[in-house]
Amino acid sequence: MTEAPDQQQEASAEVRRRVQDSFDRQGLMAHLGARITGITPGRVHIVLGAREEVSQQHGYIHAGATSAVADTAGGYAALTLFPDDCDVLTVEYKINLLSPAVGDRIEAIGTVVKSGRTLTVCRLEVYALRDGAGRTLVAHGQQTLIRVNTSAQ
Amino acid sequence: MTEAPDQQQEASAEVRRRVQDSFDRQGLMAHLGARITGITPGRVHIVLGAREEVSQQHGYIHAGATSAVADTAGGYAALTLFPDDCDVLTVEYKINLLSPAVGDRIEAIGTVVKSGRTLTVCRLEVYALRDGAGRTLVAHGQQTLIRVNTSAQ
Amino acid sequence: MTEAPDQQQEASAEVRRRVQDSFDRQGLMAHLGARITGITPGRVHIVLGAREEVSQQHGYIHAGATSAVADTAGGYAALTLFPDDCDVLTVEYKINLLSPAVGDRIEAIGTVVKSGRTLTVCRLEVYALRDGAGRTLVAHGQQTLIRVNTSAQ
Amino acid sequence: MTEAPDQQQEASAEVRRRVQDSFDRQGLMAHLGARITGITPGRVHIVLGAREEVSQQHGYIHAGATSAVADTAGGYAALTLFPDDCDVLTVEYKINLLSPAVGDRIEAIGTVVKSGRTLTVCRLEVYALRDGAGRTLVAHGQQTLIRVNTSAQ
Repeated sequence: MTEAPDQQQEASAEVRRRVQDSFDRQGLMAHLGARITGITPGRVHIVLGAREEVSQQHGYIHAGATSAVADTAGGYAALTLFPDDCDVLTVEYKINLLSPAVGDRIEAIGTVVKSGRTLTVCRLEVYALRDGAGRTLVAHGQQTLIRVNTSAQ
Repeated sequence: MTEAPDQQQEASAEVRRRVQDSFDRQGLMAHLGARITGITPGRVHIVLGAREEVSQQHGYIHAGATSAVADTAGGYAALTLFPDDCDVLTVEYKINLLSPAVGDRIEAIGTVVKSGRTLTVCRLEVYALRDGAGRTLVAHGQQTLIRVNTSAQ
Repeated sequence: MTEAPDQQQEASAEVRRRVQDSFDRQGLMAHLGARITGITPGRVHIVLGAREEVSQQHGYIHAGATSAVADTAGGYAALTLFPDDCDVLTVEYKINLLSPAVGDRIEAIGTVVKSGRTLTVCRLEVYALRDGAGRTLVAHGQQTLIRVNTSAQ
Repeated sequence: MTEAPDQQQEASAEVRRRVQDSFDRQGLMAHLGARITGITPGRVHIVLGAREEVSQQHGYIHAGATSAVADTAGGYAALTLFPDDCDVLTVEYKINLLSPAVGDRIEAIGTVVKSGRTLTVCRLEVYALRDGAGRTLVAHGQQTLIRVNTSAQ
């Protein structure tokens, strides 16, 4: 296993295209209204706007929507570090919902903690954002992913 | 803490109404197309049909949708055992995605493992179903919930 | 992946020997005073007696000791279903501590929920027992394990 | 809930004494040979030396010992931020074992991510250390704790 690379550098155009293409095939992300806002090696950002269609019973963003974008951000963060004939599957994740997701939108950030030959572990963070105000950490999680060789399938 | 009650008995009409009313206020559940199919004391079933809008990149039901209905089933399972001036919030959950969710629909079952004064722990199971075939366990998880007194807010 | 087998049948003498031999090489289990009390296909039981050396600050069995025997029970439950040139490593686990472990001893039960080619998922249960009284569920968890081919190392 | 405070400042003598006194009453920590090496507000470090008594079947430090010190570090990290009539209990934790714990000793670091009125969430990190070499991240986890008012008991 190797430590996660420096996340300041830009991902290659090829990696960004692979991540975006896969994301665009996810019917759920389009249906929720989520979009990718950042792709660097070992880190992916996804933003989801607050609206009726993603709400829970009190009007805040539903924990299920929060988790769905967090899980997706972690999965694509892992994928940025894989060779191009590999795909990624979520093995499991654990997420704490820390505060109600109050704001205009949430931003999920998936970050690779450890990238191994078979398994990758990511940290998941979700912030609620409001224009003109700061951001609040609303969810924090940890995820295990497995690399799948697509050429062998 | 007390052991979870016998889940064979029917929940009272009052409990079923409270759960269904809360569920109906969740914009996300309607947007995904999920519906409650069973409410007994300490256990709730939710069914979600497979369609483009809840898919991941290979066409199966997205882990995020699977998790969202599992989390919701567990939350309402906890709520069935609360007094009527209480609401429930998910503290955290962990879920393993065991197999691709291949089938016509999935059924999430939330079951109370331990119901305490403040915290409740639930088991989460999700099965993929196909007409004329059996069911396959596609996700298995564990969830912690907290009781919130709504009359005090 | 295949469903876990019927856990009523006895494990073969060969499997029981492999599990017991590996357990006997774990310095920690001897140091804590833990012992295996049951090995069936897909399920292993471990008992740990309450004493000063495994206590937390209030005198109950320490959550760390509870988790250690639960993790070990799950690992060997997975191993019972592997070919004999394979070993098992814990990828991760999540455990809820439900009640103080009050009693003469605890019994941890690891049970395979899903046994795959690479990954296995187990349910972890820990009960506190007291002579002449019943048992209390004190911890409940879920664990992911990976199969390692020892002949290839 | 409030963000965790700056962890650079020293914890007060009163807080350090409370944490150390509680730790000294844990029979398990003494039995394993663990000791506290750092207490700052919202963060606690615990070191455990490698020896036969804490080993698994291949001679590395047992995941159960790794988890026990990680759980304990997180619990005391939470306690550093509580009023002095409060105690802490672990609700649950999840931990990924990333690499074999090869080295002379491990260091577990518990850090408060979010400190709420009832619940606290901590990040758990465990490093393997070897004299003259660097450190390796061997485990990474996330923990939920509950505050208990001891004066009310």
